[in-house]
Amino acid sequence: MGKEEHPNISVDCVIFGFDFEKLNVILIERKLIEPDTGKRLINDYTLPGAHIFKDEPLKKAAQRILYDLTGLHDIYLEQFYTVGDPARLKNPVDQFWLECIGKDPAEHVVSVCYFSLLNCNQVTIQHKERNPRWYPLKDLPVLAFDHAHILDKAMTALRRKLQYEPIGFEMLPDKFTLSQLQKLYEVVFDTTIDKRNFRKKIARLKYLVQLDEKQQGVSHKPARYYIFSNEEYKKTRNNILNFTI
Amino acid sequence: MGKEEHPNISVDCVIFGFDFEKLNVILIERKLIEPDTGKRLINDYTLPGAHIFKDEPLKKAAQRILYDLTGLHDIYLEQFYTVGDPARLKNPVDQFWLECIGKDPAEHVVSVCYFSLLNCNQVTIQHKERNPRWYPLKDLPVLAFDHAHILDKAMTALRRKLQYEPIGFEMLPDKFTLSQLQKLYEVVFDTTIDKRNFRKKIARLKYLVQLDEKQQGVSHKPARYYIFSNEEYKKTRNNILNFTI
Repeated sequence: MGKEEHPNISVDCVIFGFDFEKLNVILIERKLIEPDTGKRLINDYTLPGAHIFKDEPLKKAAQRILYDLTGLHDIYLEQFYTVGDPARLKNPVDQFWLECIGKDPAEHVVSVCYFSLLNCNQVTIQHKERNPRWYPLKDLPVLAFDHAHILDKAMTALRRKLQYEPIGFEMLPDKFTLSQLQKLYEVVFDTTIDKRNFRKKIARLKYLVQLDEKQQGVSHKPARYYIFSNEEYKKTRNNILNFTI
Repeated sequence: MGKEEHPNISVDCVIFGFDFEKLNVILIERKLIEPDTGKRLINDYTLPGAHIFKDEPLKKAAQRILYDLTGLHDIYLEQFYTVGDPARLKNPVDQFWLECIGKDPAEHVVSVCYFSLLNCNQVTIQHKERNPRWYPLKDLPVLAFDHAHILDKAMTALRRKLQYEPIGFEMLPDKFTLSQLQKLYEVVFDTTIDKRNFRKKIARLKYLVQLDEKQQGVSHKPARYYIFSNEEYKKTRNNILNFTI
């Protein structure tokens, strides 16, 4: 690109994806093989990330990473934490990797972290050199740098946000069933939800609009579709004053 | 200090203080006077901030700023947002100021922002060159850079956090009355709270412990003191699953 990077400021993206069964995250390989022996020197995974360009806004850098991976603009994106521990890249394996990819291993890199929400079935991950793909959160491979810590912080931020804003719909197709919605909340909060209570709660929400349309070509009893109405949500949302004392 | 700074990474601190009547924030002057004419060239205010040192953790930098202003360690501190818009320091008055203080006005500075909570009456702000002091949030002077935006984000973050964690006690003395506690929530949420409902809510909280001791030397009927028990809070706190759908 020829654009000059900030050597000490990066952006990392935790891209969450729901596949109707579980929560996943996009990781990319950090495979490094010694040419002579074929021995694997590094074989772990990182979150997608990049150094920001000089004069590039932080969010733009995150959008660039997302676009690069999915070909999509306007993906749900939220800044949740910035890591800056001087030791965060100092693990020998990380130092070795940085040298191999031509970065200065001595650099103190501060990374601004974003999380994104997607429905796995509605995106195609672009084929790239380091083989980005979805990995289930419940069965993650070894992560490089402080990326396990970042992922942990992202999970907390996602749950917190879901406690006051219905962003879960970002992980569903436009039309979805109540079972799909319930499953989404179950996997994010790692719990089971009582179906009757859930439906009662749902019935009160004006911004969840029932359609006449039902599922087609399913082996079970076809369920009715719902959509999330952002317009209704904006109307009914009150500025919550439910503080904890 | 002789320590080398990152020219493009800073930390800004929004230090909230409650004085039993209103919410305040520490600001410092950005006064600049032309020596020949005595004309004020700049006369506005900034949040306390500093560039981070090479190999200094972000939180350490924030703690350094806080210690410098108050002489205190272990002040409540929470990272809430990172700003990085390339235009954030590009206002002509800001560019002029940066030149005057020997910084490179062309630098793209990313700033990691923290908020802190204090009781105004229990800290003494150290006398410093640029005259740091408390300013009421309801009557702020003109702020430099993007500091009004940062303050706005801090206020949102403080309110959000108060919705799920009782951090308000950080802004009260160890012993406080229920009226003081109520006033704190009223000023933070910019609202009035019904006293009876508030007391009912309070009565249910095991971590709010009534003392035998009462106020002394007050003109009104002396009120009973309460303390916040972190031990009880940790016991009673359940991992909230009150999500919004």
